[in-house]
Amino acid sequence: MSATLLDQIRFDPAGLVPAIAQQHDTGEVLMMAWMSRASVEETLATGRVCYWSRSRAALWRKGETSGQTQRLVELRVDCDGDTVLLLVDQTGVACHTGRHNCFFRALRGETLTTIAEPLVAPESLYPER
Amino acid sequence: MSATLLDQIRFDPAGLVPAIAQQHDTGEVLMMAWMSRASVEETLATGRVCYWSRSRAALWRKGETSGQTQRLVELRVDCDGDTVLLLVDQTGVACHTGRHNCFFRALRGETLTTIAEPLVAPESLYPER
Repeated sequence: MSATLLDQIRFDPAGLVPAIAQQHDTGEVLMMAWMSRASVEETLATGRVCYWSRSRAALWRKGETSGQTQRLVELRVDCDGDTVLLLVDQTGVACHTGRHNCFFRALRGETLTTIAEPLVAPESLYPER
Repeated sequence: MSATLLDQIRFDPAGLVPAIAQQHDTGEVLMMAWMSRASVEETLATGRVCYWSRSRAALWRKGETSGQTQRLVELRVDCDGDTVLLLVDQTGVACHTGRHNCFFRALRGETLTTIAEPLVAPESLYPER
């Protein structure tokens, strides 16, 4: 099962694959992060999205600290197997800045402009920081 | 202008940044590819999306061969600057298989299942191949 799936994913030399998280019912692209083989396996086993944190070099159970979890609705793989699309149901906000998604800066004319404000205070998401 | 934008994009050690292409009006995630600094600059200059082909190690003017171009509607950058979201208007199909998007394989239960068929014959896209 996941063996079949995992065989179809082409992990890069670092053992990672980019994963796009999209809110399943609105189409909003929430974030992009990386998954290792183990994080894909855990995500499928638990139904909660688990990434690989490149900065911490550890499994990153999305929302474990902040509570802003992602329930997996469907996992898709692209034509050449080197990107994963996660249809998810996002609890709260996806971005560590407190915004609903991470793509809140848009090039408008010649200026990169902030187009969304935080919905929650970032410090409330990570109280121990 | 693009200097400001380009300063905010964190290219990886290979000089590339992952770019997600999303159909601007439907929210459909079409594909994921890579951009170099030069491909971002060309995309902004022309309004047509230009990626970097890692396999060919060359600028990849999307649709140059197939005619399936992507007009840039808006460019967004994520919170830490290491992913780009391209809102585009796709002409024809985004995927080289002739499907509208590249994410046509979904894990349904334990099986990776094809959930979309080609809209055009791939050989009609690349007649010289």
